[in-house]
Amino acid sequence: MNPLDSADETFPDLPIFGQEEREGTKIGPWVRLDQTVPYRNSWIQVEHHEVRDPSGSQGIYGVVRFKHRALGCIPLHEDGTVTLVGQHRYPLDRYFWEIPEGGGRAGHDPLEEMKRELLEETGLVASTWLPLGEVHLSNSVTDEMGMLWLAKDLVQGTASPEPVEKLQLQRIPFREAVEQAADGRITDALSVVALLRAARLVD
Amino acid sequence: MNPLDSADETFPDLPIFGQEEREGTKIGPWVRLDQTVPYRNSWIQVEHHEVRDPSGSQGIYGVVRFKHRALGCIPLHEDGTVTLVGQHRYPLDRYFWEIPEGGGRAGHDPLEEMKRELLEETGLVASTWLPLGEVHLSNSVTDEMGMLWLAKDLVQGTASPEPVEKLQLQRIPFREAVEQAADGRITDALSVVALLRAARLVD
Repeated sequence: MNPLDSADETFPDLPIFGQEEREGTKIGPWVRLDQTVPYRNSWIQVEHHEVRDPSGSQGIYGVVRFKHRALGCIPLHEDGTVTLVGQHRYPLDRYFWEIPEGGGRAGHDPLEEMKRELLEETGLVASTWLPLGEVHLSNSVTDEMGMLWLAKDLVQGTASPEPVEKLQLQRIPFREAVEQAADGRITDALSVVALLRAARLVD
Repeated sequence: MNPLDSADETFPDLPIFGQEEREGTKIGPWVRLDQTVPYRNSWIQVEHHEVRDPSGSQGIYGVVRFKHRALGCIPLHEDGTVTLVGQHRYPLDRYFWEIPEGGGRAGHDPLEEMKRELLEETGLVASTWLPLGEVHLSNSVTDEMGMLWLAKDLVQGTASPEPVEKLQLQRIPFREAVEQAADGRITDALSVVALLRAARLVD
């Protein structure tokens, strides 16, 4: 045994500068070497990662993590109409007509969260829920994941929108909403995906 | 004329603390009172806004601005197949099969940018481009806007993917890709919107 080996055991296992590189954390073909959190609020966390990219070069990756799941549903009434929600969206300074949407808290059942949001925004209660699958909204920058449903067998209750929300509601034929999603008059991604997926289920 | 008025003219027009409030900038029913930029890289800028919300309460809004447009196209071959691109997406640590996508630089024609990205990723050149409309990917937090096309009359050239990208390509029947977008096996929002919009155009 080399006497230097036993002496080395008393030192912490530090990488030797210039010879050994930090190993980092493997993320698929990427390696995360370091990360900081330059911004966080109640909805998002922005992370700055030092990475080794799949080509082996060192670089950076800015990741936006979402605290909540994006939930959306299509309330389909017996007369063949759907309820859409209109609101001004601050990041784009633009008015949008969308399906009812909300944020699902971690650790809560997404469907129960969706039911709560639907009731708050529209006053509607649905007894039949058909899943319309998942969607990843912007997977090159964010980890935002959406879950979608078709909500049927509706009963009208009382809406209680949050004061911050200035919502309008309208009912239009489901087929008209699908046309608007298909031709680009409806542009909100959650709404377009839900309506065009539902169009393949509903006669 | 009050002599104090002419004396006041030599002073800058500052608001009087406690009496006069900054008016801010109207953004629909919101008012932006102040903003800082806690993070910026080559792809995104994160802004922290102090706002008065539509209910009149003071609050904050974190906005993620995207430097590039999100562009995507469906390369539809004469045999009825489409080319899909597979890659690992770092923010979700997950492998995705998607349509060819890329970032469109501001001040450049989006269609020319899409042609460049399609060539780089797949080596394909299309002579017919049918627009599939716009989509806003996450309008409660980001200003990201996507533009989509169906690309036909394809000629195979030579791909030259960026070294950072480890891409796989596969060709599957268009109808199979549409089924995967509809049933949730394809979850990337740009891909799902493009495929389900295109399904209504293609026989």
